[in-house]
Amino acid sequence: MKKIKTGIFGGTGYTGLELSRLLSAHPNVEIVFITSESRAGQTLRDAWPQAGHYDLVSATEAPLDETDAVFLCLPHTQSAGVAARAVEHGVKVIDLSADLRLQTPESYFEWYGVPHPAPFILPSPYGLPELGRDGLAGADVIANPGCYATAALLGLAPLVRNGLVVPGHAIVIDAKSGASGAGRAPKSHLLFGEIHGNLSPYNIGRSHRHLGEIEQFLLPDGLQPGRLIFSPHLLPTDRGILAAIYIRVTNMQSALAIFHSQYAGEALVDVLETPELATLAHVVRTPRAVLSLTPAGEDHLIVMVAIDNLLKGAASQAVQNFNLMHHLPETTGLLETMAEPV
Amino acid sequence: MKKIKTGIFGGTGYTGLELSRLLSAHPNVEIVFITSESRAGQTLRDAWPQAGHYDLVSATEAPLDETDAVFLCLPHTQSAGVAARAVEHGVKVIDLSADLRLQTPESYFEWYGVPHPAPFILPSPYGLPELGRDGLAGADVIANPGCYATAALLGLAPLVRNGLVVPGHAIVIDAKSGASGAGRAPKSHLLFGEIHGNLSPYNIGRSHRHLGEIEQFLLPDGLQPGRLIFSPHLLPTDRGILAAIYIRVTNMQSALAIFHSQYAGEALVDVLETPELATLAHVVRTPRAVLSLTPAGEDHLIVMVAIDNLLKGAASQAVQNFNLMHHLPETTGLLETMAEPV
Amino acid sequence: MKKIKTGIFGGTGYTGLELSRLLSAHPNVEIVFITSESRAGQTLRDAWPQAGHYDLVSATEAPLDETDAVFLCLPHTQSAGVAARAVEHGVKVIDLSADLRLQTPESYFEWYGVPHPAPFILPSPYGLPELGRDGLAGADVIANPGCYATAALLGLAPLVRNGLVVPGHAIVIDAKSGASGAGRAPKSHLLFGEIHGNLSPYNIGRSHRHLGEIEQFLLPDGLQPGRLIFSPHLLPTDRGILAAIYIRVTNMQSALAIFHSQYAGEALVDVLETPELATLAHVVRTPRAVLSLTPAGEDHLIVMVAIDNLLKGAASQAVQNFNLMHHLPETTGLLETMAEPV
Amino acid sequence: MKKIKTGIFGGTGYTGLELSRLLSAHPNVEIVFITSESRAGQTLRDAWPQAGHYDLVSATEAPLDETDAVFLCLPHTQSAGVAARAVEHGVKVIDLSADLRLQTPESYFEWYGVPHPAPFILPSPYGLPELGRDGLAGADVIANPGCYATAALLGLAPLVRNGLVVPGHAIVIDAKSGASGAGRAPKSHLLFGEIHGNLSPYNIGRSHRHLGEIEQFLLPDGLQPGRLIFSPHLLPTDRGILAAIYIRVTNMQSALAIFHSQYAGEALVDVLETPELATLAHVVRTPRAVLSLTPAGEDHLIVMVAIDNLLKGAASQAVQNFNLMHHLPETTGLLETMAEPV
Repeated sequence: MKKIKTGIFGGTGYTGLELSRLLSAHPNVEIVFITSESRAGQTLRDAWPQAGHYDLVSATEAPLDETDAVFLCLPHTQSAGVAARAVEHGVKVIDLSADLRLQTPESYFEWYGVPHPAPFILPSPYGLPELGRDGLAGADVIANPGCYATAALLGLAPLVRNGLVVPGHAIVIDAKSGASGAGRAPKSHLLFGEIHGNLSPYNIGRSHRHLGEIEQFLLPDGLQPGRLIFSPHLLPTDRGILAAIYIRVTNMQSALAIFHSQYAGEALVDVLETPELATLAHVVRTPRAVLSLTPAGEDHLIVMVAIDNLLKGAASQAVQNFNLMHHLPETTGLLETMAEPV
Repeated sequence: MKKIKTGIFGGTGYTGLELSRLLSAHPNVEIVFITSESRAGQTLRDAWPQAGHYDLVSATEAPLDETDAVFLCLPHTQSAGVAARAVEHGVKVIDLSADLRLQTPESYFEWYGVPHPAPFILPSPYGLPELGRDGLAGADVIANPGCYATAALLGLAPLVRNGLVVPGHAIVIDAKSGASGAGRAPKSHLLFGEIHGNLSPYNIGRSHRHLGEIEQFLLPDGLQPGRLIFSPHLLPTDRGILAAIYIRVTNMQSALAIFHSQYAGEALVDVLETPELATLAHVVRTPRAVLSLTPAGEDHLIVMVAIDNLLKGAASQAVQNFNLMHHLPETTGLLETMAEPV
Repeated sequence: MKKIKTGIFGGTGYTGLELSRLLSAHPNVEIVFITSESRAGQTLRDAWPQAGHYDLVSATEAPLDETDAVFLCLPHTQSAGVAARAVEHGVKVIDLSADLRLQTPESYFEWYGVPHPAPFILPSPYGLPELGRDGLAGADVIANPGCYATAALLGLAPLVRNGLVVPGHAIVIDAKSGASGAGRAPKSHLLFGEIHGNLSPYNIGRSHRHLGEIEQFLLPDGLQPGRLIFSPHLLPTDRGILAAIYIRVTNMQSALAIFHSQYAGEALVDVLETPELATLAHVVRTPRAVLSLTPAGEDHLIVMVAIDNLLKGAASQAVQNFNLMHHLPETTGLLETMAEPV
Repeated sequence: MKKIKTGIFGGTGYTGLELSRLLSAHPNVEIVFITSESRAGQTLRDAWPQAGHYDLVSATEAPLDETDAVFLCLPHTQSAGVAARAVEHGVKVIDLSADLRLQTPESYFEWYGVPHPAPFILPSPYGLPELGRDGLAGADVIANPGCYATAALLGLAPLVRNGLVVPGHAIVIDAKSGASGAGRAPKSHLLFGEIHGNLSPYNIGRSHRHLGEIEQFLLPDGLQPGRLIFSPHLLPTDRGILAAIYIRVTNMQSALAIFHSQYAGEALVDVLETPELATLAHVVRTPRAVLSLTPAGEDHLIVMVAIDNLLKGAASQAVQNFNLMHHLPETTGLLETMAEPV
């Protein structure tokens, strides 16, 4: 079979590295180029000791015309322009930045504080396959969801969509992420000495940008505006997200049942049997999401959602979307090497 | 000045070690004995490479009569009996186990699943000084609060006592603790290989035992029964607790102000100026609690409370209680070596 | 192609878990059984949240006759008896314990302090393929090397065999291992609270048992007896071994060259170009060994050897040996999912 | 008693923070100023959540004339100039940079690759008190030793000075340091994600700059030039140095005995009884050095030396030197809060 010629923009951050690893083992992919501005002229192995000797080129030198598809692991505001250029050239795009996640320029401005760099490309399909594959199969452009948004939506959407949320009450999402979620650029607060032995909340309440895409996704399904409280924390570990979601439900039995029916048949989402609890150890270095359900009193449900922020929260979900775009089985390149499904 | 002759029961667990460290530097204390069943005949230094050469004796050989006060770092069910014996001998007791925290045998049975081993000793004063010193000054017996309970109560009591909590809504306490909180007994799930890189919730919802003492404390002040949801997690670090408390308040300005007034003048509790957020780095290896306050939307408040689980959550709070018992300045032995108060 | 029916004895320790993961993805393997004494009746997933639902049976109930080959991840002294029984049944054996590594019962007694449990099975081929495949291809029994021994031998053998070691001088092997090397049995010194933030040497000098197999391997090649000094340390991380080997060489250019020629063409051993230095990050979670070479002054060479203690130091090397036994390509089941070779 | 007015140049790096913590609790010290170029105008607490509210000023605004003594925690090349200026003003100097450690400008150029910025200030007394207090008592300027140099010298000097080293053999120093040793400036290789789970050697062999001061100190005592091999490694923890020193000795009994006699009566250096081994846990967050001695075969000795790189390797040793300069008891401000000496 002819391989899909693929380029990666931004290959030396943590997400780009995971993506190159996945794509280098993907049976239908040929990697044509990997870009890096800071390391152009070097090889990927210079950025990552386990990587292959892929040459790194700057984005302006990347042979876009020689590819069928590109993954964008670029900073927001930089990504949309590249996406637009790729679309012009008839190249499919999976954008892992935030640039295509919000459907309107107004919403983008609200959450990111800058005008959208390429508003004509909006809206793009939002690639969270387990919550809706319409618009993803065969798509030309897909916005890959944020890592926290993926965890939150997998835990909330089944309840919201089925009218199981009691209105008028806050929904608390207390989320914790490994440090790779903050990226690989050298910043003081990301030094080993600052994170080791520490746990630090940041952007808690109603201020983190992923709230925008979570609410955009859930409001049409019936979520009340302003009810979400979202508190991310930086964990002293390298990877993984665990989100604890606290929600008052109208009917506990239905609430428990809906998760099992929603995700029955999903290869990459597992719902544990109560009382087992989801942990990072369930998911780290895998493309899976694992959920657990714990009633608290009569009417509150605690949904724990665990994902690897770099995989289901970024790179492996991008590969799911890539597979859907190309009408390949959705888990191609993702499950071959895993232990038997749980 | 004559030193207070003091014994430590259970000196080789993490809490006992911290206590011996604090007491060995306390200007008014002479350590008379330290007990250990597993290490009787050895010295404390065999259990802890930085400790002094204190001889360890078994509890039955400890010269209770030669002491003025004892600290009990024993497992629950074992502690109450020793406490009762000490009281008989006129020796003051600070009990760091759970045995004296609940005020009735019925409540103890409800939360611990066994009959109380010495019901006649109940109720004992609950030693959380910043929330009430009545009954602590000069007391003969004090129950030292649980680590999670200390964090939760410091964050909740000011709101509950002042009627600032909207009834009918859940109060979520999402708490994370370093591994020392689980003790030093060898258990599989506490191995380095299980905790490194992991984050695991346990006993979430309405099942963790510290809920009992939290509710006991707050119900008389007006907390609605059954409204607390408490989710502890085990962090990949050695020490520290960070509790995120989510609560709907009747008046945001009053809610913010009440914390500052409640803890004004407290040497060991700091309330940060918004928007600074409490982290483990604020408190680890100190006897302080640090709180931060973050409004989420119009009517929800997020109170972050950080303590060192082994200090404000155990050993240093025990020293506060000891000082109160003996009419010493409350921070004796605790602040001499710290940097200037924040 | 017909799959090789394979059993794993001792499947719930860290090595057994890695082995089950590798074998479940091995294209020529069907896992017939996995044993566990402590978890018989449970599934592998109960021991490891990412594992499949393999049923665990006790060793006495394992259907040895239904297998073509077995891997033994049992404690030493227990393993040899099972190996002997398997051989009787015509089942191939890869023994990951220490029982078959030393070639004589006398040597076993010297290093392990107990009589060999099945001396008639000795000697067995020593399965370190890159240092000699004779006796491994088609073998019925292979002793899988110790983790430290693998690292030390890969760094030393090329020099010793080629007469490049100056006699009369000590050879220092300063080795550091992640905590998984110490196993998964609950022991106090392996608790998270004891290893986090610590680095501890143990059995240093001439006492660690892996010295026995290292010297046994190198003495026939010309190593002087008693010259090795070997100091293992326990690192505050979960996996990986880094060994720094200090050796006086007769000819620096030849010493540097011999490593490149020795390992040219080896898929699983990489020799870095000086001055790049081997680190754990080169090898963790891979089946590779990575070496670096650094001259120190005119006549001393520092050889750094990095391996994953659970893979090249145990499970993946066992799969290499299994493949050789069955005349399969040596890296079957090991490289399919890795990034392009470095 | 009148307090000694003291300034700290460079107060917001890891060493400066430890120093401010120690000095704020020192009974004879009044902190007059703390400088920071990057944080001038802020308070120390902005750099470190447990610190006091000391105002930070830029170095040019620091009131040097109002002090009796200054500690310099500045980058090398910047420090010597400030030291020279302080000396002119009659202010005592403890320099924690490398600028004053080498006794000649030539040696400085050899190891640091730049001309010495203030050669007229050389040579300065080298402040490693346990190896020689001559020249330190009452001194006006002291060069505070490097962290690795402190560990290496404490382990080597007793042997070299007493002629117990067999000539013609390499002396291997395999040292491991926590990440704080690399400083607090944001660099990619110091990110949490790069160090967590890793162990990486750097500047091994004969290239690390601390070799210069180690040899300068030992050559006059009889060390053969060029015999030291020194290999530092970066550990996945925040603080602590463990150095394993491998040395062929002329007489094992004398070698063992010399350490006990050398350090008898030293409050801050402990020599463990064989076979106990020094670990980071012995020393982290203490001003002590702990040594252990292990014979390897008949003629090699392994000396393990553990220190906290930020304390005995920097800040607390600086306080020892400060105390000596001012004819105060050497451990003033260092031992008051520790458990009984081991």
